[in-house]
Amino acid sequence: MPKKVDPGERRRQIAQALHRVTAARGLDEVSVRHVAAEAGVSAGQVQHWFRTKDQMLRFALDTVSEQVEARLGRHMDEIEHGTPRQAVRALLIELLPLDDERRLEAHVAVAFGARAAVSPEIARSVREGMDQLRGFIAERIRASGAREPVDHPERAAAALTALVDGLAVHTLAEQCTPEDAEAALDDQLDTLFGP
Amino acid sequence: MPKKVDPGERRRQIAQALHRVTAARGLDEVSVRHVAAEAGVSAGQVQHWFRTKDQMLRFALDTVSEQVEARLGRHMDEIEHGTPRQAVRALLIELLPLDDERRLEAHVAVAFGARAAVSPEIARSVREGMDQLRGFIAERIRASGAREPVDHPERAAAALTALVDGLAVHTLAEQCTPEDAEAALDDQLDTLFGP
Repeated sequence: MPKKVDPGERRRQIAQALHRVTAARGLDEVSVRHVAAEAGVSAGQVQHWFRTKDQMLRFALDTVSEQVEARLGRHMDEIEHGTPRQAVRALLIELLPLDDERRLEAHVAVAFGARAAVSPEIARSVREGMDQLRGFIAERIRASGAREPVDHPERAAAALTALVDGLAVHTLAEQCTPEDAEAALDDQLDTLFGP
Repeated sequence: MPKKVDPGERRRQIAQALHRVTAARGLDEVSVRHVAAEAGVSAGQVQHWFRTKDQMLRFALDTVSEQVEARLGRHMDEIEHGTPRQAVRALLIELLPLDDERRLEAHVAVAFGARAAVSPEIARSVREGMDQLRGFIAERIRASGAREPVDHPERAAAALTALVDGLAVHTLAEQCTPEDAEAALDDQLDTLFGP
């Protein structure tokens, strides 16, 4: 009798394979065949989950969001009850490629950032999460008692998310080390919130 | 008798077509066929310039660098004799997608940034220009008499280039306006050099 496979487990297995293929070859090389081989399942099983490449790409982005949210759930105390600086840092540090898991996620995010530049549909789907993130950061900037009040909290929040995205690109392209990226984020948090 | 075409002119014509195809469809859609159609020349004429897609991609990046350098040449006085803030601003403002020409260039740069994350060879070719740019900025940060001296000029220079790259991605993906991107750069220059 064939072994029963938990569908959630199979879905995670395919998602992880999808992230690894994206990280190794880039989004344009993502195909049902490559992902199936990487996951060690049949092409049919991958096709069971996605009918088109677009569905597969969307799935890659969604599963990255789910993973980040699951990790954030473990830092909820800091995010909800920490200082504004601690809360913003706890969020943004999850988006920098500082370990293997975040590296894979950053590869997917960077690939989608580039694709958003030529696809209004992907731009729209990226924008939603971005607006939420920026709103949260702007609120914390307003709530903070930094020495010099920030003139434009929304603009500062947008710039901070741009810095993190740029640092992710530079880290993956080995134009800076993970340590430098983390230090650059902390420098900017010092400027906005005080040390 | 067939009209003689200046080879430099033909090369520029193909480069511009290559940039437009990258901006409209992304790097993975760049092909000899698409570029020839966009330039209004034969596929054979495009192939006269590049034997492989890699050669064509490298050409796209090189011509963007040439265009930026040509524009910087017109601001040499500011770059060499302006204040440190003016010099750094004159350089970085050329990398933000604030008009049609810089938008096309930013599309090429963002696409290459994403590809550098999965291709060590492209990462290497991007890194060279980046090291030069950061070296120049770090020197100007050290030379500036900002109110609060910057502790780590190299790190601050690297962060500033990451911010500009992140702002370019966000502007192209319509996550911020060109005006917001320019204002965010100026905010950061205020922090580093004083207003």
